[in-house]
Order: sequence, then structure tokens, then C-alpha cells
Amino acid sequence: MRNNRQSKNEKIPLQKTAAKKIKRHPVDHGTKPQSSDAILADLKHRLAEIYDLNAAGSVLAWDEATYMPNGGAVARGRQIAMLRRLAHERFTDPKLGRLLDRLDLCSDNLPADDASLIRVVRRDYEKAIRIPAEYVARANAHGSASYNAWRRARPANDFATVIPFLEKTLDLSREYASFFAPYDHIADPMIDDADEGLTATTVQRVFTELRRELAPMVRAISEQPAADDACLYRSFDETAQIGFGLSVAAQMGYDLERGRLDKTRHPFCTKFAAGDVRITTRVRENDIRDALFSTLHETGHAMYEQGVNAAYEGTPLGSGVSSGVHESQSRLWENVVARSRPFWEHYYPALQRTFADQLGSVPLDTFYRAINKVERSLIRTDADELTYNLHIMLRFDLELKLLEGRLRVTDLPEAWRAGMEADLGITPPDDREGCLQDVHWYSGNIGGGFQSYAIGNILSAQFFAAATKAHPEISSEIANGQFGTLHGWLTDNIYEPGRTLTPHEIVARATGSPMTMAPYLAYLRKKYGELYRLPLS
Amino acid sequence: MRNNRQSKNEKIPLQKTAAKKIKRHPVDHGTKPQSSDAILADLKHRLAEIYDLNAAGSVLAWDEATYMPNGGAVARGRQIAMLRRLAHERFTDPKLGRLLDRLDLCSDNLPADDASLIRVVRRDYEKAIRIPAEYVARANAHGSASYNAWRRARPANDFATVIPFLEKTLDLSREYASFFAPYDHIADPMIDDADEGLTATTVQRVFTELRRELAPMVRAISEQPAADDACLYRSFDETAQIGFGLSVAAQMGYDLERGRLDKTRHPFCTKFAAGDVRITTRVRENDIRDALFSTLHETGHAMYEQGVNAAYEGTPLGSGVSSGVHESQSRLWENVVARSRPFWEHYYPALQRTFADQLGSVPLDTFYRAINKVERSLIRTDADELTYNLHIMLRFDLELKLLEGRLRVTDLPEAWRAGMEADLGITPPDDREGCLQDVHWYSGNIGGGFQSYAIGNILSAQFFAAATKAHPEISSEIANGQFGTLHGWLTDNIYEPGRTLTPHEIVARATGSPMTMAPYLAYLRKKYGELYRLPLS
Repeated sequence: MRNNRQSKNEKIPLQKTAAKKIKRHPVDHGTKPQSSDAILADLKHRLAEIYDLNAAGSVLAWDEATYMPNGGAVARGRQIAMLRRLAHERFTDPKLGRLLDRLDLCSDNLPADDASLIRVVRRDYEKAIRIPAEYVARANAHGSASYNAWRRARPANDFATVIPFLEKTLDLSREYASFFAPYDHIADPMIDDADEGLTATTVQRVFTELRRELAPMVRAISEQPAADDACLYRSFDETAQIGFGLSVAAQMGYDLERGRLDKTRHPFCTKFAAGDVRITTRVRENDIRDALFSTLHETGHAMYEQGVNAAYEGTPLGSGVSSGVHESQSRLWENVVARSRPFWEHYYPALQRTFADQLGSVPLDTFYRAINKVERSLIRTDADELTYNLHIMLRFDLELKLLEGRLRVTDLPEAWRAGMEADLGITPPDDREGCLQDVHWYSGNIGGGFQSYAIGNILSAQFFAAATKAHPEISSEIANGQFGTLHGWLTDNIYEPGRTLTPHEIVARATGSPMTMAPYLAYLRKKYGELYRLPLS
Repeated sequence: MRNNRQSKNEKIPLQKTAAKKIKRHPVDHGTKPQSSDAILADLKHRLAEIYDLNAAGSVLAWDEATYMPNGGAVARGRQIAMLRRLAHERFTDPKLGRLLDRLDLCSDNLPADDASLIRVVRRDYEKAIRIPAEYVARANAHGSASYNAWRRARPANDFATVIPFLEKTLDLSREYASFFAPYDHIADPMIDDADEGLTATTVQRVFTELRRELAPMVRAISEQPAADDACLYRSFDETAQIGFGLSVAAQMGYDLERGRLDKTRHPFCTKFAAGDVRITTRVRENDIRDALFSTLHETGHAMYEQGVNAAYEGTPLGSGVSSGVHESQSRLWENVVARSRPFWEHYYPALQRTFADQLGSVPLDTFYRAINKVERSLIRTDADELTYNLHIMLRFDLELKLLEGRLRVTDLPEAWRAGMEADLGITPPDDREGCLQDVHWYSGNIGGGFQSYAIGNILSAQFFAAATKAHPEISSEIANGQFGTLHGWLTDNIYEPGRTLTPHEIVARATGSPMTMAPYLAYLRKKYGELYRLPLS
């Protein structure tokens, strides 16, 4: 994932919900008139300091997750919180609002990038100033307490203990939404934070269609003989696993002069500057999938951030445009590319050489089927490409019901079991493998945290289809371990603009259409139709 | 070293020179009267934020030196500078001065630690406010430019290129001193920054005596057959070297729950919190001394910082008291302990097991003589325990002459050669091995940067003598790999107080006398008299 937990604390909210509610600040008549150049320079200077404060906080969080000794934890939490607070104070400074007001008066004459900057900063600023500082402090304190309670409760299968925490999180999430009232759906402000332009209604419409299409595919596959994936669970040397993944990442286009890979409990991608975008991975000795696909997933996020125009560094333009578009890149590289047959036609011999004892006698076809085995399983993060979406949609539905008041926290375990039964046909034996499995609700808001994963899947196929339409040679290049054409197209169309365009504009400009599910469904039907010899298409 | 270059940027100046010049700030009558408790709480709150800003800067600097990819360099320099600037701005805020003024009025009733806090903060504050912000920016910018010029010039043996940089550094150093005028000697303000209570005159007096004592010892030893140290320069596996050093460090008392060891180009110790004090080391495959003694040197610094009363965290009380006392701890553990015969009686068998091919057939006596080989050599950082002081005193003398105007920068190489010839009887073939070898003058001030190393040597023996007088069993404990009694005495007498006492008070309380050279000379005479069978004592 894209450092979901961290990003909640690390970023100023990214988009505003209600553009119509912009309030003008009283003009500060005490200051001298300035040219728009001077005002812009002042604005950029302030933004750069905010960017650097957030970057410093991210370095401290990266260190906390990678190398920090246990004894550093208490001070580190305090130090990160201070940097976030200083950044937030500076960003919500009314002086910054007055600079934006002045710039609005002369924005017709500005270069396009500066106009984009003002639009994005305005959006972020109007969102940030609606959130009281005391709420931020209260929500952060509760987030830490809740996370700690969850860390103890999950291994103990003790849902009862987290109920009061989750109820307070729900209250805080509703309070958060209230800062952006009126809204059509109470989840809309949180969804808009992650995926500008999407709402509960639009996501529900998309998910209804996706579920309708996926359910029969999963059913049909489950009636086939299961793929034999025993080869994935042998003993694989940790250093060799990391080395192989990193070598592939570098060949895909992850620039290690401007990045690096370290080990953590939960994989993430983090950015300190255009020249320093890092990823982390996790290794399981007895599961070759984990380090490899985590690394390539985070590589997708990292190549996106490395590809943003470096001229935007130090401003809100200099990052990925939304969670959904970000996930589209991690999923594109992890799944569409690195779980494809052409990819392994090139890389499997090298993998066999690296792990000769374990894979030397395993045919490519067996390995390819193993890494694409569809299985109705309980844990989201272990799920295959196809059923993964069902896990996401279950969580999204439950989030909406909790926020709407149609589901009580105490009834969550039962609702989870019922949902798993309905969507996947299996029932978790306990809450550890049910509603206690994901950190999201226990460390941040309820709402807005899950839809991006499925949106990312949909967009990954849409982008890949557009890239291969423009460059039909991409598939055969992948079969030769060459990624330059694909990486170049993605850079030009998605990475380079950063936040100068909206998510919708990015999708439309790159693919010629708004977000659409057709390419994703076609991709799934073709891939799994061939894998399981089904008449899916 | 104790992160000399970093500490210049990382710390607010530590002591004031001229207590008599304290200016009172106009009392702020607009605010409500506060109790001394409330004023103290306000002060501590401000200090904690300053502490955390500096700690964040140190994390970024540690990462820069250990793991940062090359691409991160430009942004990282900017981010560290910003954090230092924010800390400096907060510390020199006149509001902080007013809090101190109010506290002075009621300081008779305060607990001793709070009284110490006010004394130390007052001292640091009065020093900090004398240095204009524009000077700090100018000096830092020049420091970076000069450091980069030196990095290129040293391998090219190109002193001519750095002359203008060094001349400007000299001007800046004089300007720095001028902020603290009047002084007895122009180097006094810089010396006092590092070693409160010392002056150029007192250091010169100490060094005159030290040189007079060392010169005949070095001469007598050089007339003896040279020790055979070939065993140190075989090929030693890097990981095994680091592992051995870290294992000894942990046994000495370095708490790895609150610390860790990483590799860097230049070894240093850095502190982010009482619970997070890290060290770094450097490894040469063909020189077993480098990683081992660097690690144990930094371990001494780290145990000092880990031993400071954790209640002082977040205030200026929570760190070592001076550079000289800090060096005494690195030198005590590196030299007095880890270059002693009892130490190796315990550890040499383990080292032989670790490097059986290289050391299995080398007798303990040969190894012990090798690591204590006295040699008149050109490079300070490679020098033995005895001649090391001559290197330091040469630099100190040249610093004073440069500051006094008695030596021109252009004449420095010749003065260096003459000094080496006079003190060590050898002449550097070029400036690489002469006046270009140390980073100090090329990245910070001229003045105040070198004396602490020799002061540390003197104090290391004085402290060790006092500890063994109180606990005669320490020597035999070291011969059994036990360090608890020594570590405990050092903690009680030196580490725990942090900066609540002055350096002079620490020395006098721990040893019953002011700094004195007798224990150091006795230590050297006994050790080298035995090693070289000389009638030195």
C-alpha cells in the first residue's frame, strides 16, 4: 500500500469539497502593494518551508519504521507530531489565504503551471482551514491510542476491547465530515480527500457493476481444479529475495540514485524530495510472493513520484494526483506487468537460477499459474488479483453503513461474516481473520480509506490498454525485460503532470475517456479465461 | 570524533563568555503575572520544541551520512538548514529572554535542577543572541562552499584553491570572536564554546607542559626497535569486524535498545532522544584497528549521552557538559580500557576465534604491542595514543597564530611542515598529508576545534585513576570482560549530571581536584615504559 497510515498524518488534506464556500479574507491594507511575481514568490517560499517540514516528518517516520531502536519510540512520536503541527500551522496561516486572494485577482496573466498551483493550493487551503487545530490534536491522539489498542487486540482476537475505540473513531469521522457540510453522503468528504471528484454515489455505482461482473467469474473459477502453488512456499533466502526484487525494480525504471529499498513490517513508499523516493518491503522466508510483489507494488508508487516534474518540488503540485491514480500505478506494475506471462517468460529463468534448488525443476507454466491462483481466502493482503476487489468492496459497504448509522460497531463482526459469506462464500473463524485484520479503521478515519484500491485496479487496466494502443510493441518488450516504452508513456501521461491536472483530467487526457471499467473487465476475462480455460470473454 | 562537523551546525552555542554583560529585557507589563511554576512550564515547553527541532535535524543528518541516496543531497541540505534555523529563531526569541528575567527574580526558591536549568539556558541564550542571524546564514553558506572546495582540493593536493576559502573562514572566525569582545585572546570565545571555563592561555600552559613531557618519551621510544604490527593489516571480513566491535560495545554497557551502529565515511555519535543515541563506524578490510577502535571510541561518547539523567531530556541540561569531557569518555573506553593489556587478556581469544586464519597463530603479546605501536606518522587520525597529542598541539598553535595575525594562510603549508619537523621529526611530502588532511578548518571555525582532543586524553586518565582509586577491582574486572563497576562510577560521577554542573565542577567532584596532568603522565609512563622497556617513570 501507499503508506496509508502514514499518509493520513503526513499530508495536509489534498482537496476541498465545496468550492462554492470559499471565503475571502479581509485585504491587508497595511502592507505595500506587490507585483504578482512578488506575491507568487512569497507563496512559494511559504510552501517550500511547509513541504520541507512535512518531508522532515516523513524522514523521521521512515526511520521509525526501518532502523529506530525501541527506546526512541516516545520521543519520535512527539517529534513527528511537532513537525506535522508546524506544517499545518503554516499552511492554515491567514496570511497564506490573503496571498491566494491577491493572486486570484491577477491569475489570468499567469503561466499555466502557476495557475495550477494557485488552484491546488486554494483547494488544499480551504479544506485545511475548516479543520480546527484542536480537532487535529484530538483525532491524532485518539488515532495513536486506538492503533495501540488494536495492536494488542488483534493477536488476542479481542474485538470487545476495541469497540469503544472504534465507536469514538466513528464519532470523529462524522465530526470530520461535518466540517465539510453540506454533502450528499457523509462519506463524501473523506472519499474526496483521497480521490478528488469521486463520491459515495459514484463509487457505489462502479462497485455494483464490478461485483456483478466478478461474482460469476470467481464462481466459475472455483468450480475448476485449484492451481498447484506449493512451489511458492519453499524456503527462500531472504537476501536473495530482496536482491531479485530490487534488480527487477531497477530494470523497470526505479532510479536507485534517487531511491532505495529497506525492510519494514508493512511495505510503503515515501518521498522526501524529487531526488529521494524510497520504498520498503517485507520478507517471508516461506513465501516468495511477499517480498517480490510488495517490492514491485511499491516500485509502481515510487516511479510515479520519481516521474513528477522536478520543477514542482516544494509545492503541492509535486506529488501524485490521488490515491486511486497512485494505486493504479502500483497495481499496473505489480499485476498487469509483473503477474503477466510475457514478464515471466523473460524473468523466470533468472529466478530459477537464483533459487535453483527450489524452482529449478518447476516449469514456467506451473509458476505462472501459482502466482495467479484464484482462491476465496480470508485475508485481503494475501488475496489474488481477482478476489482482492471483493475484499475492498465489502469494507467500503461496511464503512458507508457505519457512517450512515445503519450498522452499529458492536454488530460489525457479524456483518463482516455475512458479507464474506455472500461475496466469497467463506466465513472467517474469528475476528482476527475478520474485521480485526486491517489497520485502517483502527488508526485513521472510517471512510475514504479503501475505495482507492479497487479504483486503482480499474484504472491500471485502462491506462495499460491506452499505452499498448499507442505502442503495440509494449507486450513484446516486456517479454524481453524492456520497460522503457511503457515507462515513458506513463511518465508523459500520468507522472510528469503531478497535480497540475485533476485526476479526471489525467484519466481523460491519457486514455481519451473518463474512468471506465471495460478495459479492466476485458483484461480479467482474457487473463483468467486463459488461465482457467473458461469461456469468460 | 564526536561528530565535530555536524555538531557545529547542530547545536546552539553552549556557553556564554562574558557573564557580566547580561542585559535585562524590558519587562512585558502587558501580560498577566505568572507563578514561577507557570513561567518554568512555559520555558520548558519552548525548550522541548527547540530540542525536538534540533533532534529532527540530527535524524536528517544521520540519514544523510548513512543511507540517503545521492539524489537526496540538495533537498536534504535545505531541510537540515531550515530545522536549524527554526530552532535558532525560537531560542533567540526575546520572549524567552523575558521568561529568564522573570525567573531570575524567584530563583532562590527553585529546586536545584531548575536553578541549573535557568543558569545553563541563560548562558546559552546570552551567547546565541550575540550572533546575528545574517551571520549564521553567511557562515553556514561559506562553510558548505568551503567544505566542497576542500573535498575536491585534498585528493588533488591543491592547497592554492582553498586559500581564498580559508582566508574567508579566518575572517568569519574573527568576526565570530568579535561578537564576544572584549576577550583576553581572540580564540577564547571559540574555545569557550567547546570547553567552558578554558581559555587560550590556560590551554597553552597545559600544552606547553604536555609537549615538554611527551617529546623525550617519543624520542626514547623511536630509538627502540619498532613493534611488528603486520598482523593488523591482513584481510578481515567486514561483517565480522563490525559484529565483533558491536558485541564488545554492548558488553561495555552501550544499550542497543536505545542505540544502534551503522556504517559511514566518518565515524560519529548522534543523539535524537535519551532513548535513541546512535553511533557509526568505518571499516577498512585491511586494517583491523579502524572499525574496532572507531566503534569503541564512539561507544564512549554514546554511553555518556545514554547515561545522562533522562529527566533532563528536552532541555539543554540533557547532554554532555563539554567537548573535552566528552572526548575523555571516548578516549577512556577506546584507549585506557580497550588498548590495555587486561582488556585483551579477556578479548583476544574471542578475536582469534573470529579471525582464526589471520590471528590464530599471533601471540597476545604481539597483538598488544601492535595496537600500541608508537610511530611518528603524518596523519592525525591514524596516530597512536602518544603522538596523537603532538598532532593536536601543532594544530592548536597554528590556529592561534592564524587568529592573532602572526601567520598568513598562504604560509600555512610551510608552518605545518616546520611544526611537524620540530615536534615529530618528520616532514609531510605534500599538503594532502599536511595541512589539507583535517576537515575542521574547511567546514567550520578556525579556533576551538582541536584542543578538546588532548584535554580529553588528560581527563580520561584523571577520571580512570579516580575510579580505580574508589574501586581497585576495576582492573581485574576488565581482565574478565566486566565493566559494570567502571561504567557505574562514570555514570554517577560524569554521565548522570548532564549539564547541571560545569565541566570544572564535574572534574573536581569526580576526582577531588581540578584538571591535572599527573595521572595522564603516570599512565603513559607506566604503559609505554613497560611496552618499550624504558625507564620512563
